[in-house]
Amino acid sequence: MTTLPAPLVLAFDIFGTVVDWHGSIAREVDALGLGVDGGEFALAWRAGYQPAMQRVRSGELGWTRIDELHRMILDQVLLDFGVTMLDEARKRDLNRVWHRLAAWPDSVEGVTRLKARHIVCTLSNGNIGLLTNMAKRAGLPWDCILSAEVFRAYKPDPATYLGVAATFDLAPQQVMLVAAHQDDLNAARACGLQTAYIERPLEFGAARPKDVSPDPANTFHASSLTDLVAQLGG
Amino acid sequence: MTTLPAPLVLAFDIFGTVVDWHGSIAREVDALGLGVDGGEFALAWRAGYQPAMQRVRSGELGWTRIDELHRMILDQVLLDFGVTMLDEARKRDLNRVWHRLAAWPDSVEGVTRLKARHIVCTLSNGNIGLLTNMAKRAGLPWDCILSAEVFRAYKPDPATYLGVAATFDLAPQQVMLVAAHQDDLNAARACGLQTAYIERPLEFGAARPKDVSPDPANTFHASSLTDLVAQLGG
Repeated sequence: MTTLPAPLVLAFDIFGTVVDWHGSIAREVDALGLGVDGGEFALAWRAGYQPAMQRVRSGELGWTRIDELHRMILDQVLLDFGVTMLDEARKRDLNRVWHRLAAWPDSVEGVTRLKARHIVCTLSNGNIGLLTNMAKRAGLPWDCILSAEVFRAYKPDPATYLGVAATFDLAPQQVMLVAAHQDDLNAARACGLQTAYIERPLEFGAARPKDVSPDPANTFHASSLTDLVAQLGG
Repeated sequence: MTTLPAPLVLAFDIFGTVVDWHGSIAREVDALGLGVDGGEFALAWRAGYQPAMQRVRSGELGWTRIDELHRMILDQVLLDFGVTMLDEARKRDLNRVWHRLAAWPDSVEGVTRLKARHIVCTLSNGNIGLLTNMAKRAGLPWDCILSAEVFRAYKPDPATYLGVAATFDLAPQQVMLVAAHQDDLNAARACGLQTAYIERPLEFGAARPKDVSPDPANTFHASSLTDLVAQLGG
């Protein structure tokens, strides 16, 4: 068995891995008093995410940032849920909830400790401004914000994973993707990156626990970012 | 007289404004014992910078990162200075001196304090990896690394200044460029950004003091980044 060298760069998926989109959106929507279930609303909004990016990947839409895609999905979800009471300013503000997602309880400590030995950066389909606003609010101390927006391609396009390695003039195996989603990790591994799976069983809410079974193909499998720190010897 | 609103984003030029390229390179070159004057070597290397970027701006070269441009210039400067003793590994290492430039004495405190009230980001022609390595080493706590590499255009292309505003979904005047170079500030102002000039009289070394006269067209004129903090009420 070959022992891989410790990765120099840790690139983090964000939505679901570092921040709790479901809980954050459910709380904000519930607080608006729209007469809808916030948790169900969050799931519907997120369900539009992959299809919207697919319209960009397929070329049907030109390059479009997630902020704009989130807004297109939101308008449809509001229709589907029969919500007609929000004016334009309130819709714009609600759309920015993705800039205000709360970190999971271990994320700030985990990223901060990993930063001592590694370059820590985002690799998210979220746009740069969204990720920067989120990090500033949550106290996530990234060395660098990388995004699909930098590479003009959405994960799982290889241009994103290989783009991180190229950005730092490294070989792919010197970079590790940290994510709570096996499909994201599979795509990164196919590009030669190391991979760390993070268990986030509550990503879709307490009512819909997620399968967090290990896949032996990953370099690491951790119950949290602080567990990953320990496994990396930090 | 109209009072401008405080800028939400401060975008910093880096080479010469936040870090001391001349002194840092002179020290490393002198330490190599190549039999050349480190300060003169630094000036010659930097003198190739604008002509190299112009080859990209004009389309003669496709998109090329500063690391590659620095290396092309370095190879010529080594020839011009008659230095033949460096092997490939040492040339590669010397080229990375741009990743190791030292911050001016007020920079870390200034950026850290400005970060409390503003989004602080880079806006440099340096590539993302270079800027990230530099920030990590120097302790510069950027919220976000923006670079010509993100916008695939070199300053003073308007796409860079307007790109910062677009990244954060802001109007140009909600962004302020912070720089030690009037030509950079002039180009930013033409795009509608606010501008802050920082005096760096020693940018080209103690033997070549730079004119740091105020231009009343700038929104602020500061003797250092900590002076800018004070003027912004921080």
